[in-house]
This record gives sequence, structure tokens and C-alpha cells, in this order.
Amino acid sequence: MKMKVTGLAIAVALSAAGSVAWAAAAKDEPIQPLVAPKVTNPGKVELGKKLFFDTRLSKSGFISCNSCHNLSMGGTDNLKTSIGDHWQKGPINAPTVLNSSLAVAQFWDGRAADLKAQAGGPIANPGEMAFTHELAIDVLQSIPGYVAEFKAVFGSSRVDIDKVTSAIAAFEETLVTPDSPFDKWLTGDEKALNAREVAGYKLFKESGCVACHNGPAVGGTSFQKMGVVEPYKSTSPAGGRSDFTGKDEDRFNFKVPTLRNVELTYPYFHDGEAATLEQAVDVMGRLQLGRKYSEDEIGKIVAFLKTLTGDQPLFTIPLLPPSSNSTPRPTPFD
Amino acid sequence: MKMKVTGLAIAVALSAAGSVAWAAAAKDEPIQPLVAPKVTNPGKVELGKKLFFDTRLSKSGFISCNSCHNLSMGGTDNLKTSIGDHWQKGPINAPTVLNSSLAVAQFWDGRAADLKAQAGGPIANPGEMAFTHELAIDVLQSIPGYVAEFKAVFGSSRVDIDKVTSAIAAFEETLVTPDSPFDKWLTGDEKALNAREVAGYKLFKESGCVACHNGPAVGGTSFQKMGVVEPYKSTSPAGGRSDFTGKDEDRFNFKVPTLRNVELTYPYFHDGEAATLEQAVDVMGRLQLGRKYSEDEIGKIVAFLKTLTGDQPLFTIPLLPPSSNSTPRPTPFD
Repeated sequence: MKMKVTGLAIAVALSAAGSVAWAAAAKDEPIQPLVAPKVTNPGKVELGKKLFFDTRLSKSGFISCNSCHNLSMGGTDNLKTSIGDHWQKGPINAPTVLNSSLAVAQFWDGRAADLKAQAGGPIANPGEMAFTHELAIDVLQSIPGYVAEFKAVFGSSRVDIDKVTSAIAAFEETLVTPDSPFDKWLTGDEKALNAREVAGYKLFKESGCVACHNGPAVGGTSFQKMGVVEPYKSTSPAGGRSDFTGKDEDRFNFKVPTLRNVELTYPYFHDGEAATLEQAVDVMGRLQLGRKYSEDEIGKIVAFLKTLTGDQPLFTIPLLPPSSNSTPRPTPFD
Repeated sequence: MKMKVTGLAIAVALSAAGSVAWAAAAKDEPIQPLVAPKVTNPGKVELGKKLFFDTRLSKSGFISCNSCHNLSMGGTDNLKTSIGDHWQKGPINAPTVLNSSLAVAQFWDGRAADLKAQAGGPIANPGEMAFTHELAIDVLQSIPGYVAEFKAVFGSSRVDIDKVTSAIAAFEETLVTPDSPFDKWLTGDEKALNAREVAGYKLFKESGCVACHNGPAVGGTSFQKMGVVEPYKSTSPAGGRSDFTGKDEDRFNFKVPTLRNVELTYPYFHDGEAATLEQAVDVMGRLQLGRKYSEDEIGKIVAFLKTLTGDQPLFTIPLLPPSSNSTPRPTPFD
């Protein structure tokens, strides 16, 4: 493997927790180490964290962003497809929110340009939180603790959806997971990976996985067809990027998911039909690369993939400001 | 009001967060200050915290203890009645888990003697988490991270429901909320309450509320009939303690809820039908005491009640150990 050091630049960034992370000069590889983000507006991040955990952004008062992007569980719900208002079965697997700021666009079909655009989607989706932006704003505007916090962060006590999604996005931008064993290896700690893990990475790279799974997030940079060599068979209604663009050539094109923390983000694929990493690697090899990996090869690649689990965001549980007497109450059973 | 100091004993206790709380000599009142619990087995508490947040203890993989006893929201779900598996409407309002270790028994009808006995209930309740103890243990036993943690805490890697509920109870015992303004006032800080709040407490005490709402938790020490002077009208199916004892004289007897953090634990009563503290005080006055409080009196009592909000448990979000390939997968839509 290449050992060339690409430069002398040392980036120093302040993590959300206030600690300092060094993105040291890394090996010249198609995957780059993650850098903990610098928090420039901690008040906005704190407000966004509260909103991320607030079930009052849903009609039922039961579902928050964290319900499906659970930060105790790799930023996912670990379900094939998510559960929405009135226990509706979602059409697609909930992607992890971890490192999502690094993606070229949001949602499997890329219909949201960025995290801010994404954040408003589930609130108003009848199959997810089933609320409206107007009603969500009415709720937040009626809560004195939130009004004070919006005023402190945005300079105005008028709550609107633009501020809400901007704060949620600011929190989500902090959800980066640096310092995985693979990143330690990338930045020079040869002992961070064992021989099998290094062999797995070499196979991952040489057999073509890195064509799509590259960059700091090991994915998230492009849309690719699910089923290049062989068609992917699924009962999922999701049509991929064509659902958004309307173009036939985008059919079954999905955003390449990040493989960061993939050990935690099971089950896999847009329909969640691969329960294990071994299954996912086998299917990817056959359908995308036309290669039938042996059991040993799959084991090596999986060993490498498990080195992509980084430091999970560690923060204090948010305490939500209580509703006031004038706060509209949730209506879970209407 | 009485100012007698009841003794010279100064109790020093270590809170869950590692800080030190002093339960100073308190005024001789029917309500006593809360004392932060001393954590003697932090590993067990940490394991219990993980289990409390783990949705894999439910059939669906979507509902955890924290779903209905949300520690971002006063240890409740702020719903009239809770949402269970397949969006079932629960029969009763979820009581707060905060300070629940101080209660004479658990559940509104007291059918569980203690927190450990309570913790197993919702897991196996078909209307709540809809799992079985056996299946929950199968899940936990298949997760290497949990097995190691059970071994470290209990000296054996064999997971069983007794250990699970014991760990959850150990975590719940830490969920005490000391240092409310009222407790500061009780222990000598006269400025902690304003004149209206003190007047509210005086009225609360002198008009008879303290007959039931007393002790450190301001309730939780007895079962009382809902509707002493006038009958309480409700469409709730809950029959109270008689549902557990089978005795007719226990009909509509419910455990007196704690009023600690009552500002956060709306809506009120076993059926959640009182949306605001003002409504709750009005109904309690009329039905339990035969007294129609004036609007000003209600305002004073509510002002006092809001001084019972203490320091909420602040802890780092738990990171749950990932499932293994052999972990049974949740079945939310079966």
C-alpha cells in the first residue's frame, strides 16, 4: 500500500465537546480521515440539539428526529424501514445522521440539497412526523424557554421554520465521528489495524469498492445504480433518484451511503434487506462488481469495515423547555 | 410558618454526576428536601441507563423505557395516555420516573412493590413494548457488548430478567431531582421563594393538600380515592387499586402522584385529562377537599408548585452496544 505523505498541513479543529482533534497529514488513499468540526455557534448547536430530540415537532408528540436517527444507535433506528405516525411503515431505510454533513445531498434520492433542506421534510411528511411547519412553529412559539433561546441565537423571538431547520442542521453538522482505528492508521499509526483488517482494506480498494465508497465519509459523494451487473430484486416501492428527478435514467440510482460506523447502522441498503455486513458485502460484490467474494474475502472486508467505527458524539441529554398553558397539545390518536 | 430546625444532622450524599449535595437541616414542614442518592455501583447504573434507552427490549425495536418516561421531558411522555406497540392507546397516563424510588409502590395501582418489579412490566405488556422476558433476554445475550457488561457488573455473563430489571432499577434510583427552589427555601434560603410562592405553599398546607401530598416526593406515600367529596368523571377504563387487589373498597383508589417537577409532567391525573396545573388544582380542590379555590388562590398554589422543579438528571447520552449477526431482529410490522 502507498505510504506517501500528502503534505505537511496539520488542521486543528475544536470538537463539539470542546476537545481538540488533529487531522494529521494522511496517507495518499481514496479515503481521508474525518476531522471533528469546529463549533462556531454553540448556542445554535444547543438549540438544534433540543429540537432534534423534541417530540413536539410531531403531530403525535411521540416522534422526534432522534426516534429514527437515534444517536444511541449509530444515528439510525436499526429497522429495515422506519415507523411513522400511527405506526405507518416507512418506504425506505433511515440513513444515519452521523457524518451526513459530508454528503453531496440528503435523502437516498438526494431530493434535499443540504441538511437544512432535509430537516423540514420529516416534520411535514404525513407518513413520518405527520405535522405541518405552521403547527410546529405554533407549538415552539408558545414555549417561553424556546422563544428566549431563539432570541438569543437569532436575535429575534419570532420562530420560523427557516430558523428551526437551520438550528437542527447546525447540531447535525457536529455529528462527525473522528478517530476510528482506520483513521488512526491513515494518519500513521500502523498498529491501529491488524494484518487482516489491512488485507480487507486492500481488497476493498483493489476490487473496486472505492470507486463509489471514497472520500472522508467512505461514500455519500455520488448517486449510483443499485444493480449494475445484476438487477437488484426488492419489494421496496423506492425508485431512487428518478422519484425526484422524474428522469428514467435515474431509476434505481441511489445516493451511495457512507460506510462510516457501518458496524452500527444495520440493516443495510435502501430497503434494509441485508441484515448483516457479510450479506451486504456479498450482494455488493455480485451486483455492483460482478465478483463473487469467497467467505474469507468477505470476512476480511468486514473486518476492515468495522475499523470505520469512530468516536460517537457524546453529549449531555438535552432538557426540553416545558410547554405553556397555551401550547397546542399533541393529538396522537386523532 | 414554622422555622424550627429539626436537628443538627447534616447528610452528605454523592450525586450520580459525582457532585456533592448537602441535605442541610430542614425546616419542620410536612415536605422534606430531596437528597441526591449516593451511587455505590456506577457500573450497574451505567448498564441500567443503557437498558433504559434500549429499544431492543421491545418487539418492534422502536420503544424503550425512555419513550414513555422521557428524561428530556420530566421523565414522562407528556401525553394523556401513552403510545404502545402498533400505536396502541394506553389505558393510563405514564407517571414520571423522576423520584419514583421514593414511592410506596409502583404503577398508579401499586401492583409492583418496587422499581425492580416494575421494570419488567412494560417489556412484556402486549399494549406497551409487547415483547416477552425470554425474547428480550435472547436479544441481550446475543450482544457481546452487553454480555461483557453483565459479566463485569454481576460476575456472570448469563443475562436474565432479574439482572436486567435490577440494573434498570439501579439507574432509576439515581433519577432524583434535588435543589429545587422549594428545597432551598426549606433548608434556610429565604430568598429562594418569593412572597406569592410562600403564600401558595401556606394555602397548599392549610387547605389540606399536604394530607396526601407530603414527604420528600410531595406524594407517592399512600393510595387515595380519586373523588372524595364529589365523584370524578372519566372515560378512562382504569379502576385504580381494585384492579390489582380485587377489593371493591379499593375502587378508584390511586397512588397519590409525586408533585416534584409537576411543572414538567403535564398532563395530570391518571387519565391525563387535566391539561394545565390550574385545572388540576381546581379539580383537586373541589373533588378531594370540597373547596372551590378562587382564581387568585389557584394562581398562588400553582406558583408554589412550580418551585418544586429540581435539578434534572444530567448525563451523557448512552451508546448502545451493537447487535451481532445472531441477534434476533425486531419485528415492528408483524
